[in-house]
Formats: sequence, structure tokens, C-alpha cells
Amino acid sequence: MSIRVKGLISFCEFTLLMVKRVPMNFKGSNILSIDQYERQDMVTIFSLAAFMECYAQRKKRTRVLEGALLGNIFFEPSTRTRVSFETAFYRLGGSVFNIADKTGTSMVKGESLEDTARVLGGYADVLVVRHPKEGSVKRCADVSSSPVINAGDGSGEHPTQALLDLYTIMKESGRSLDQIDGLSIAFVGDLKHGRTVHSLAKLLSLFKNIHFILISPNPLVMPQEIIQQLQSRGHTLEECRDLASGIGKADVIYMTRIQQERFSNPEDAERYRGCYCLNKGLYEKQVGSKNVPIMHPLPRDSRPGALEIDQDLDDHPNLAIFRQANNGVPVRMALFALVLDVADIFSRT
Amino acid sequence: MSIRVKGLISFCEFTLLMVKRVPMNFKGSNILSIDQYERQDMVTIFSLAAFMECYAQRKKRTRVLEGALLGNIFFEPSTRTRVSFETAFYRLGGSVFNIADKTGTSMVKGESLEDTARVLGGYADVLVVRHPKEGSVKRCADVSSSPVINAGDGSGEHPTQALLDLYTIMKESGRSLDQIDGLSIAFVGDLKHGRTVHSLAKLLSLFKNIHFILISPNPLVMPQEIIQQLQSRGHTLEECRDLASGIGKADVIYMTRIQQERFSNPEDAERYRGCYCLNKGLYEKQVGSKNVPIMHPLPRDSRPGALEIDQDLDDHPNLAIFRQANNGVPVRMALFALVLDVADIFSRT
Amino acid sequence: MSIRVKGLISFCEFTLLMVKRVPMNFKGSNILSIDQYERQDMVTIFSLAAFMECYAQRKKRTRVLEGALLGNIFFEPSTRTRVSFETAFYRLGGSVFNIADKTGTSMVKGESLEDTARVLGGYADVLVVRHPKEGSVKRCADVSSSPVINAGDGSGEHPTQALLDLYTIMKESGRSLDQIDGLSIAFVGDLKHGRTVHSLAKLLSLFKNIHFILISPNPLVMPQEIIQQLQSRGHTLEECRDLASGIGKADVIYMTRIQQERFSNPEDAERYRGCYCLNKGLYEKQVGSKNVPIMHPLPRDSRPGALEIDQDLDDHPNLAIFRQANNGVPVRMALFALVLDVADIFSRT
Repeated sequence: MSIRVKGLISFCEFTLLMVKRVPMNFKGSNILSIDQYERQDMVTIFSLAAFMECYAQRKKRTRVLEGALLGNIFFEPSTRTRVSFETAFYRLGGSVFNIADKTGTSMVKGESLEDTARVLGGYADVLVVRHPKEGSVKRCADVSSSPVINAGDGSGEHPTQALLDLYTIMKESGRSLDQIDGLSIAFVGDLKHGRTVHSLAKLLSLFKNIHFILISPNPLVMPQEIIQQLQSRGHTLEECRDLASGIGKADVIYMTRIQQERFSNPEDAERYRGCYCLNKGLYEKQVGSKNVPIMHPLPRDSRPGALEIDQDLDDHPNLAIFRQANNGVPVRMALFALVLDVADIFSRT
Repeated sequence: MSIRVKGLISFCEFTLLMVKRVPMNFKGSNILSIDQYERQDMVTIFSLAAFMECYAQRKKRTRVLEGALLGNIFFEPSTRTRVSFETAFYRLGGSVFNIADKTGTSMVKGESLEDTARVLGGYADVLVVRHPKEGSVKRCADVSSSPVINAGDGSGEHPTQALLDLYTIMKESGRSLDQIDGLSIAFVGDLKHGRTVHSLAKLLSLFKNIHFILISPNPLVMPQEIIQQLQSRGHTLEECRDLASGIGKADVIYMTRIQQERFSNPEDAERYRGCYCLNKGLYEKQVGSKNVPIMHPLPRDSRPGALEIDQDLDDHPNLAIFRQANNGVPVRMALFALVLDVADIFSRT
Repeated sequence: MSIRVKGLISFCEFTLLMVKRVPMNFKGSNILSIDQYERQDMVTIFSLAAFMECYAQRKKRTRVLEGALLGNIFFEPSTRTRVSFETAFYRLGGSVFNIADKTGTSMVKGESLEDTARVLGGYADVLVVRHPKEGSVKRCADVSSSPVINAGDGSGEHPTQALLDLYTIMKESGRSLDQIDGLSIAFVGDLKHGRTVHSLAKLLSLFKNIHFILISPNPLVMPQEIIQQLQSRGHTLEECRDLASGIGKADVIYMTRIQQERFSNPEDAERYRGCYCLNKGLYEKQVGSKNVPIMHPLPRDSRPGALEIDQDLDDHPNLAIFRQANNGVPVRMALFALVLDVADIFSRT
């Protein structure tokens, strides 16, 4: 087992739950929203992801996706998400084409999003699509002949990020899937526009008795429909304006960036930038010696006046943000293997 | 045979004409203009393309271009053409580098097009070049040590598009190469700037008794030298301003977009946008139940006021435009295999 | 031996010095500055590069870097350097992701360079970084978990260019490494900002009795600290304003472009553009029939009024500039093989 185990409870249980049969709901299907998953699916995805780690780190090699083609279609700036999908596909032996920039495409010639998706879906075996407008990725999926994975649609969802976030929580805190029940998590920052927060909250709602501590400025609170969904499933929530008092009871702290690009008036975002700064002093005072992982979907805003997570935490063992980014690769490898129906090969290894 | 046959006559005859020997005029040579081909070359290209379809769809895999490198040099925006070449090369097992944007290159530092082509031609095994200026791709070919494929030079030519268009006509209408003789085709839209129309007209002129129905606004008529070339080879032409009356006699309808980016004054293009709109009502009234494929090199302009092909035709079985785009992959695979001299390997399979 | 030998003395001696053991200072280490190398390292690098030539030209194939991933991070426009690294990695069987444009990344969201390097270094097995600011590449290396190769940092260094330049000098002039001692080289143009000149001068200073002829306009002279470094190692220098008188005594002429993008006021650069134009008449008058290679790191500025190297030299056998560009591939293949610890495989072949 090549996985670094940081918590008390062994992470190995996943690999023992080796995928014997890939559930039919993965093969060839889209990944659009966390809503399409059930708790049991996490066993499938994470046991396979754990298995993928040695391939992600190139300790083992595979060419299982030889000749396969990923179309990486990004209508919005992205570094890590685009490259993380690309890396995952390469590590499985496949090839990738990128459309990374709106002005370089046929959209300037009046082509509809649907036509673009029809054509590119005809070339590739799977498409990954990010788009600034909510619902746009589903529009692509509705017409593409290849499965489509949502890499973020406006303020909507970012399901693969939620999956790697949960995977990270388990690895960092040493919890099994069953031990996610009862978790207390603090979400901090722009909870209105933060699609990673929306998707992770939905994913955690599949478990039992989660306590959500929502720390945000008043105009950037979590959307009401997500709050209702969490409550309807029996979870508890508390809203909070103050970072210090909010994080003391959390098992996990999930910081986010003010999503300036989602504001109708970007200058309004300036007002909230820097509203919550987690630094070493504050963290140690509130958390003490507990193992409370600090997470962030990245990029973190490191400009003076922003600093959601101060650089004085960069060497702290509980700062999980770069391990979290790395976890994107094995989790996305698992998803590709499931969607393209090659996961069985790994379970036989 | 993995090819979907839609017409009356079997498409299989191509594979029976299996390439026994690759003609010497393909190996290592440039693909700059349709003028360099003879009718007999179509047998070579299309029989190989038909053979490539199962590899394009990843039903079979090959690594015949392992270690080979395509340089994809696009000095003009492009989605489908760039990606189609890239896809074709990947499906054959090769690797690809992209130069997709003028401002990202050394051109801003005063480098000549020739120097760029000399350097990149030294790195890659084959270059695909698109350039906004007619004749520029030939300039690259004149100095590159690797063969160069023209992916569109201004209002000049786009030879690989013409090849995939003819391949599509055969598949969609179920015609053999000999049955292209006597074809009646309607070209609709901006026939002045549309390089795909120029190249396809030249290609069809290699056959016998083609009837060209040229439907365009008066200032956007087909260039006189192409008309003369068609006439000198014994084909018949009729020019027409009206879409409805023009398409009734056609075996194939080839719609095009108003090429705004080629107008010296782009605002002039606005006047012609939307001049010809093919919709379901018009098509069914004029064509009836005949199998008349609707083609378009894409992108189609789907903005209100343009709509060369109305979306009410999207589900019509004769709308060939997305199958046409898909055909680009096996046709370009065939061309790469010929130019890089690996086609023999397939004929031995 | 697949290498074109142009000079008097055979180039084969390199391959005879076959790398038996890869020195420990290459494996997993960064390539940031020429200062980290000793003369003996050139034997290792160049003997391996000579061995790589047949793979670079695809006369032989290898998959030694199968499954490995290069992250090509360019914060500045580049054609040949980016593609040269990419080509080298592909020829060894690896895969590549590109970040080629500042606006397409998370930098616009306030991410620090360090965070970007941490994340991307976690995905890739090796990073190649170019950045407009001196010292920035080292900042990446300080935090990346993967080795980092400097592909140019502002007016700082460009070590891999210096290595391919020296390799070119040897091949073009038929000199062995020992015969580099005593070389006379003319550097011409913008010696203040030209990082390739800085790196090559440092590299040559590892040898004995080099004579540097520095030909530049007064405000663009070689930085004083480099001059002192050269002098302290016992080399001789002469500064010169006039091209004609300067090149007569040179064994190698190294032309450079006025680096407009490095001027605090880019309009100042206009004043020096075209200050030194090497053309056929001048070259033949000053050099005669001697084998004096003309080099240039490219791109050369071919706009009227610039023309560091006139196009009337394009067919001259001593114009080495395009062979020099091609040499970038085998030299970078050698460096990748050393850093990623697969060089031994080639020495056993």
C-alpha cells in the first residue's frame, strides 16, 4: 500500500473492499452532479482511487487507456483542474486534446455550444467540460455521443472536486467511510458562489449526522436550496460570522476564496476579500493539538489583503491543501477507469 | 465492416480495393492543393480511410506512429480542424505539439514565417499549417524539412476538407467513386471566400459531368478562375440567387457560412448573414423523400439572423453535418499513414 | 553514427566516452544555472546527447519515459524552446502538459508562483519553467517536489540553451571538448539582456584560454559581474563597437536579437535594432574561406531594419542556426534522461 496514512485508523480497508464488479451506473455515463451518487458509490470510487495511487506516482505503469482520447474543454481559466484531469488520463496511457480558450475556438464564428459538443464528442472517448454558465455542461452532455464530466459550471457544481475532497478528508483524518457519519465541518468564505462547497455539502449529506458550520459574510451565505437539502436529510447547521468562534468545534476546516469572477459587479468582491484569514496563531489557539485538516480547493488568493490561509501555515503538518490537490489525480483516474469501463482490469491485478 | 452504410449501394467496395502498393507520390510529400491529385488517388485515400474507421472509433488499436510527432501550427482560430488532425494522429499512436495562437509565438519578436517553419519542421515528422493569408502554407512547405499539410490558407484551399467531403458524399449517398460521375451538387452561401467550396469543386472536377448549382449573393459568387477550370473540364454550371429553386435538382446540398473574417470590411458581412436559411419546411418541400444529404463544413453560424441550417433539421436523418465532421478523422488518418509511409502495414493486416 | 560531421575532427569520440555511470549530481536535481556544472559534466551530457540523435530523428524508437509526465510552464511567449522540450520528452516516450499563457492560469485569481509550482510539481515528474522575472524559476524549484529545469528567467540564465550551443560549436567546428580550450568567440548584439549569451559565456569559462570578443552598443554591454567571472578564470576579453573589425579573429560568431521585451522603455530598443547586420558580403570579406560557424539562439528578427543575419546567408554552409535549433532536441533528451535517471538504459544498449 503506497498511501501515506496520517490518522489513527488505517486507510487500507478500502483496498480490501476491492471492486469485484463495476456497477452499471458508471460505465459510459456522464458525471454532472453529486446528486447522481449514493453513499455506496463512494466505496467503488475510493477503493479504486486508492489502488490508483501507485500509478499516479508512477511507481507502477499501465497502458490501459492506450489509444483513448480525452477532450479537455475549458471555457474558463483553470490551471489545476485542467491539468489534473490531463495528468490522470496520461497516467492511464491515454492521449488528450485541449480547448483551453474561448477566443481560439469556433464560438467566435457563431457556433452553438451544442454543435461544439457534438463535434468534439464525436472525436474523443470522453469530454471534460468547464463553463462559466450554470447548466451549460449538461447542455453538452445532452448532445454528445461521448460521456461528459462536469469540471465546474459557473456557480453550479464541481462534482469531481467534491469526491477528491471527501477522499482527502478520509486520508487526512484517518476516518473510514462509516466514520464520516457524525463529522463536523466548517465551510469558510464565499459560500454563495463557491461551487466546490455546494458539491461537497451535497456529498456529505449522503452520510449521517453531519454538522455544518457555515462561516461567511452575510451577502455570501450558502444558497437556501442547499441548506434545505441538508436539513431535510437530518443534518445540523449553524451559521456564523466569526472565524475564531466557528472553527473551534470543527473536525475539518474548509477555506475558500472570494469568487470575484462570479460577482455581477466584480468590485463588490473587493469588500469581502480578506474577511477571513486563517493564520498559525488563530489556528493553534482554537484547535490546539487536535488533528484538524485545513483544506482549500485552490487557488488560494495570496495577494496582500486576501490571504485566506496565511503562509505562516505553509509548513504546518495539518495544512492539507497540496496533498488535497494531488489527490485529484488518483480520484480522477478512478472515475475515468469507471466511465471508460476498464476498472475491472485493475481489480484483477 | 464497421462503417454505417446509409445509401442503396454498399460502401464495402472500397475495402475490396485494398491498397496493395502505396503510390510514390504520397510518401514524404506535401498536401497543399487539390490540384496535385488525380481521380485514381481517391481510390488509394478512401480505401485506406474506410479501413481506418475501426481505429478512429477505437474498436481496434494501433501504435504504428509510435514516437512520431505532428506539429499542429494554427495561425487562425480553429476548433474542429485542429482537433481532428490531432485526433487522427493520436489514434495512430503518435504525439502532437500545438502552436495555436499567434501571440504566443516568436512572430511577435519579428521572426519570419520561413524561420518558424524551418525550426518546427526540424522538430516534427509532419506539420499541419493553417494561416490567414493565401499562399502562406506553401511558403512553409518550401523551407520545411518535414512534409507540410495545408489546413486552410486564407481564401485559398483546404484540401483535406475536400477529401473528407467527397468521402462523406459517397458514404451518405451510397455512391461508388464511379457513381460520382453525373452528380448534381448545390453550393450555397459565401462562395467567394469559402475555401472548402473551392477545394471541393476542384476535387469534383476530376470526375465526369458534374452539375454545379451555385447559389450565392451577387458579390459572393464563386471566383472566375474556378468556374473556368470547371467548365474547361466539361462540367455544367448554373448560377442562382434563390435557395428554394436551386436545391430542387441537387443530389447533395452543401451549405456554407458567411466568412466574415475574410471581408476587408467585416461589417459588410452583416448584410449577407442569414441570406440563405435552410429549414425543415423548405427542405421537405423541395426535396421530398429523396436521400439528399445536407452538408456543411462547420462551424455553422447559429446566431439569430444567421442560421444557415435551422435547428429544426437537427434530427433529420439526411442532416449529415456531424457525420461529416467525424469522417475527418479516418480520412486524415489515411493521409498521415500515406505521407509517413506506414500505409502498407494496414494493407497487410 | 547518425551525426552529420562537418568539421575536420570526428565527432565519434563522444560515443566512445559512453556513460558508464550516471553521476549522482544529475538524478532528481534541478537545472537552474550553468554555475552548477563542471567541465567533466559536459562529457556526460554530450556523449548521451550524441547517442540520442538517432532517437531524436526517429531512426530508433524508445519508450523509456512511458507514463512519465513533463509540465511545460511558460509565463512568457516561446515557440522553439517550449516545443523543443516537448519534442524531446515525446521522443523518449513520455507525455506533456502545457501551461503556455499567463491569463489562462490561476495567477489571475491571486495565486502565488509558489503555490502554482507546488501543485504542478505534484502532478508532473519534471517541470520546465520560463518566467520573465530573474530568480523566479529558482523560487519554483525551492518548493516543487519534482525537479525544475530553467528555460529562461528574465535576463538571468538559460542553461539548456548554453549546453546546446556548446554542443553545436563542437559539431559545427569539429572540435573535441579539449579543443574548446583556446577558442575565440564573438558575441554580437544585446549582450546586456541576452540570457543565452550570459549562460554560454559562463559555460565556456569552464574551459581554458577562451578569447571573448564582445560586440555591442555601449548601453547594451555584457554585465560587469559576468566579465569579472570570465577574467577571474583567466580568459581574455576585448570589447568592440564595430562588427566588421570584431569578427575577423573569431572561430565562432554568435549573433543575438535586441531583446525589446527586456527594456524598461521598449521604444528605446528601436534605437539599437539593426545596429549589427551580418550579411554575405561582410562575412566573406572578414572570414574568407575559414569554417567559422554563424550561430543565433533564434528567433532572429527579420523585419526590415533589424536583420541581425541577412537572408542572403540562408544557403551558406556555415550558417548553423537551424542545425543549432535542431540540436536542442537531443541535448534536452539527454538532460531528461539524466534527471529522470534512465540514462543507464541507453549506455547498456
